[in-house]
Amino acid sequence: MSDEASRRHMTIDDFRRYGRDAIDWIADYHRDLESLPVLSQVEPGAIRRALPEKPPVEGEPFEAILDDVDRILLPGITHWQSPNFFAFFPSNNSGPSILGELLSAGLGVQGMLWATSPACTELETHVLDWLVGMLGLPEQFLSSGRGGGVIQDTASSASLCALVAAREHASGGKANEEGCDGKLAAYCSNQAHSSIEKAVKIAGIGRRNLRAIETDAEFRMRPDALAEAITRDRREGKIPCYVCATVGTTSSTAMDPLRAIGEICRREGIWLHVDGAMAGTAAICPEFRWIQEGLELADSYCFNPHKWMFTNFDCDCFWVADRASLVAALGILPEYLRNRASASGSVIDYRDWQIPLGRRFRALKLWFVIRHYGLEGLRALIRRHVELAQTFAHWVTEDPRFELAAPAPLNLVCFRLRAGDEANQKLLDRLNASGDLYLTHTRLNDRMTLRMSIGQTHTELRHVERAWRRIREEADRL
Amino acid sequence: MSDEASRRHMTIDDFRRYGRDAIDWIADYHRDLESLPVLSQVEPGAIRRALPEKPPVEGEPFEAILDDVDRILLPGITHWQSPNFFAFFPSNNSGPSILGELLSAGLGVQGMLWATSPACTELETHVLDWLVGMLGLPEQFLSSGRGGGVIQDTASSASLCALVAAREHASGGKANEEGCDGKLAAYCSNQAHSSIEKAVKIAGIGRRNLRAIETDAEFRMRPDALAEAITRDRREGKIPCYVCATVGTTSSTAMDPLRAIGEICRREGIWLHVDGAMAGTAAICPEFRWIQEGLELADSYCFNPHKWMFTNFDCDCFWVADRASLVAALGILPEYLRNRASASGSVIDYRDWQIPLGRRFRALKLWFVIRHYGLEGLRALIRRHVELAQTFAHWVTEDPRFELAAPAPLNLVCFRLRAGDEANQKLLDRLNASGDLYLTHTRLNDRMTLRMSIGQTHTELRHVERAWRRIREEADRL
Repeated sequence: MSDEASRRHMTIDDFRRYGRDAIDWIADYHRDLESLPVLSQVEPGAIRRALPEKPPVEGEPFEAILDDVDRILLPGITHWQSPNFFAFFPSNNSGPSILGELLSAGLGVQGMLWATSPACTELETHVLDWLVGMLGLPEQFLSSGRGGGVIQDTASSASLCALVAAREHASGGKANEEGCDGKLAAYCSNQAHSSIEKAVKIAGIGRRNLRAIETDAEFRMRPDALAEAITRDRREGKIPCYVCATVGTTSSTAMDPLRAIGEICRREGIWLHVDGAMAGTAAICPEFRWIQEGLELADSYCFNPHKWMFTNFDCDCFWVADRASLVAALGILPEYLRNRASASGSVIDYRDWQIPLGRRFRALKLWFVIRHYGLEGLRALIRRHVELAQTFAHWVTEDPRFELAAPAPLNLVCFRLRAGDEANQKLLDRLNASGDLYLTHTRLNDRMTLRMSIGQTHTELRHVERAWRRIREEADRL
Repeated sequence: MSDEASRRHMTIDDFRRYGRDAIDWIADYHRDLESLPVLSQVEPGAIRRALPEKPPVEGEPFEAILDDVDRILLPGITHWQSPNFFAFFPSNNSGPSILGELLSAGLGVQGMLWATSPACTELETHVLDWLVGMLGLPEQFLSSGRGGGVIQDTASSASLCALVAAREHASGGKANEEGCDGKLAAYCSNQAHSSIEKAVKIAGIGRRNLRAIETDAEFRMRPDALAEAITRDRREGKIPCYVCATVGTTSSTAMDPLRAIGEICRREGIWLHVDGAMAGTAAICPEFRWIQEGLELADSYCFNPHKWMFTNFDCDCFWVADRASLVAALGILPEYLRNRASASGSVIDYRDWQIPLGRRFRALKLWFVIRHYGLEGLRALIRRHVELAQTFAHWVTEDPRFELAAPAPLNLVCFRLRAGDEANQKLLDRLNASGDLYLTHTRLNDRMTLRMSIGQTHTELRHVERAWRRIREEADRL
């Protein structure tokens, strides 16, 4: 007694069958991944030229679609999950995470309100409370007090949410109502992530009101320079509202001195946001918790399990010490979202903790990852990545042709040939063109620097050894 | 020759096995979905109380995790994919979409730059060009000209991106650099989505600079009132920068008159963004394209395949007529993202089209959906949903106890008992408490109004008949 149009849907039996095919496709992909050239070598436009100009008028069999993934798309994929991927940051995934994402897609629930799926909200709050303990974060971030955590898509969005809350706080609750007036000022180091500048622009504060504070020889924000900048701004009638400190900069994993910065922020009444996007994961091991020393002085903090904790993108964990200030800045209540549970005040409605309204059940994959690995499993893997990076850094220092370009406290090694930028660029291009590994670069002290970022799920000693062999081989040929 | 820590990972064989279990879990869930109470009935805190206080120290078997999904989480799920779900908006998914999301999770690539996976960028551009044709959208949105499309997480984010571009445009390129100054003004109807107010606050324009333009008897923005508000603002030294018109308001699917609004915007040099979040999908059927008449006057447009086009959340399609203005507003280029392809200017780097930096391969699921259903398949299903809503609306008008509260041009029917708010609230509460269906409400002309939103993937005539029977039964008992 089905409607005729319903025959268009994939049947449950077909879903089982094609679902197995898709699972096997992923399993085969991960099995063979190591042998694929890491960086896609296609020319711009090549993928589009292989796609039909028009969409199909009638539906096509799933087999044909899956074939086209292999035939058309795969050559255009840069293999982020390859154990030979050492570029940017890991963005690693894992079996339990992929299956958590799958279940979330299958359930297809919206978590914008507690009422629209209580389990989606409560699991998220719970897992973010777990993580406070797992990472040794300060207690102000626990939901049992005035704080709490939420999953954002990225650290970019977390930094923007923190900035909007900071702006509202500094303006005495007037910025949302009256708009910005060009007086607010924000601060980060000259090594901070580009998303801070982007957030400052989006929030209407203006790029010229963002101070890029000088850093020391190890690329850490200088607290004295921060204090001076704040004093100068106050003297000129500006209202300092937001400091973003970084635990592990993108370029070189530099660690801003949180305690000294936090004391300045407390004294000045400025919101301190701390961005631990990649490096934050390290704190799961007690021996690396020094990176967040002083974090109890922060108003908000984020790190990305989707970078280095085996959890599919997107999954940024963002905590605030005072959830009321976040909700005051981002809350909105149209009639069509009113409901009894929200009105009771006894539940969290995460729509007021983020930029978008809708949200999917992202806590599921994070919960799967934590349960699959357990605390000790995660620690063992993070330790191993750090060990591999330290080994690599040691090799660099042993080869007189190379030098380290910055301290390598965790899993990122910045290094270069003791030759000019041109030689380093050539080395990078040749390595990447070979498909054997993928590295990216940055500039430190205005010099071209190669970045060896170690953290892919299946990266082991032999991959790092091979990478170093290939780097030396190409250096020989220069 | 594996590292010892690697034993913590799920093996490929286990991934195949547990992957099948997860696929079967979803298949069983969808098979049984119809019989589950739609709205979760748990009390606040009930899910958290069932979860262990501490995370596991050692990893747990996947079977135990999947068991807990059933045992702990499922009672806390509101079943958005139930054919008896008529609340909010559909947010429907489908087999091909779930499997597309699965493959995207398995590939685990980042699409922030063209170079970080060319296929991820090019498939997205291509499918968004396809959709211009499929929906009969104006040609200015094609990537072959000066425009182009991008996938955002939600319409909220699309509206914010459009606002930031509009702000930059109206300020002559100064807003990003100098910040807002309280002079910019924005406009939408008093029926527009709450995300517009949220965007205006986030962007530092200020809520009091957002004009909620009056609507006519059918809840459509009044162009004369818009023109007056703009004139008044200009007289007072304000700079009108952004009008958001809605194709299908959230409350009642009201259609703002795009041509008249667009002509005002053109004359005044104001950015026109059009939000077609749910209703936009209807344009896949030529007979419903009247809803977007005048859209060629818009600077940007969005609709959500994740609402009514069988594509998992998140998937909002956002087009701009002039991509350079979007990139000028959101672009950023730190050293560590520089690469040859970007520098050549021959590729799209989608990081500059959105708020976050990172992005996953969302085009995959959309491509899977379009290919699985084909153009005619999608049309048949959308037509059927509209037909079902029209049938329901007809029943409402035939029953003297009920009335329609607004025109029902597509798949949403706003109706109420011809009794006071209290009776309608009671009716709503009893229906939702029964678990047989889930409806939500809005207020129209300051009266409580029930919303029957029809668009779940597996909603058929029998579900709508049963819903109407249950509504009348509960009305009988009042």
